[in-house]
Amino acid sequence: MAETETAQVEIIPDWECLRLLQSKHAGRLGFVAGDQPLILPVTYAVEDGTIVLRTGPGTKMANAPLTRVAFEVDHIDEASESGWSVLIQGVAQDITTGIDASSERLRGLAPQPWAGGDRDHYIRIVPRQITGRRVHPPEVDG
Amino acid sequence: MAETETAQVEIIPDWECLRLLQSKHAGRLGFVAGDQPLILPVTYAVEDGTIVLRTGPGTKMANAPLTRVAFEVDHIDEASESGWSVLIQGVAQDITTGIDASSERLRGLAPQPWAGGDRDHYIRIVPRQITGRRVHPPEVDG
Repeated sequence: MAETETAQVEIIPDWECLRLLQSKHAGRLGFVAGDQPLILPVTYAVEDGTIVLRTGPGTKMANAPLTRVAFEVDHIDEASESGWSVLIQGVAQDITTGIDASSERLRGLAPQPWAGGDRDHYIRIVPRQITGRRVHPPEVDG
Repeated sequence: MAETETAQVEIIPDWECLRLLQSKHAGRLGFVAGDQPLILPVTYAVEDGTIVLRTGPGTKMANAPLTRVAFEVDHIDEASESGWSVLIQGVAQDITTGIDASSERLRGLAPQPWAGGDRDHYIRIVPRQITGRRVHPPEVDG
């Protein structure tokens, strides 16, 4: 009878976390509204670990700026029970009207959200910590 | 020249949110550690909108129980710029040692996490609100 070995968690080094962040275009913003954590999918761009996203005048803009937020990108393969996840812990800043060079450059990078509507606000997430974990498929011994 | 119409956001009705939750085995837990929101992938089971997951004695167990948490499941297709997301807002409860029938049943449902190690703690998320959004691929007029 085949035995399944337990998969191990691998810590992803910083340089690879940055590469994985650049390999995707959609992630998830975690922030707190009142005392309720929320997770919302967003499209994003990344420059040196700083995330930029474009949004409307809704829940994210009302709660995220000037607070600590999480930003997560992952690849989950349910069939092989494996995947990776990269998590940024940082502070969100409203750069909609910033006239500094960084704000202007990041606004130029931010992709159009897939969903329509008024999306003329920009949020930058300045990273305090970037971590990543990978779970490989379990090894099956015949 | 082809014009791309802006995609619309569709609100997913409750019954379909529950069906989508049952269609997946891995999601993301959002909780707050100190004042820092975190998002961590987890395997889960669901019964009537209540989520159960199995975890080790780590960050999740230290912070999530008896606080408000988020639980998110999604399907994101970057190629077609479309996808759906279901978000549960609720309260996390440690049911590791609960001797009530619900705790015992949920512990039996909780899947083994893909990652190895000591994972003998169980968290239930009692939903306060379940919401879902879908973005369809943009229509392209030739």
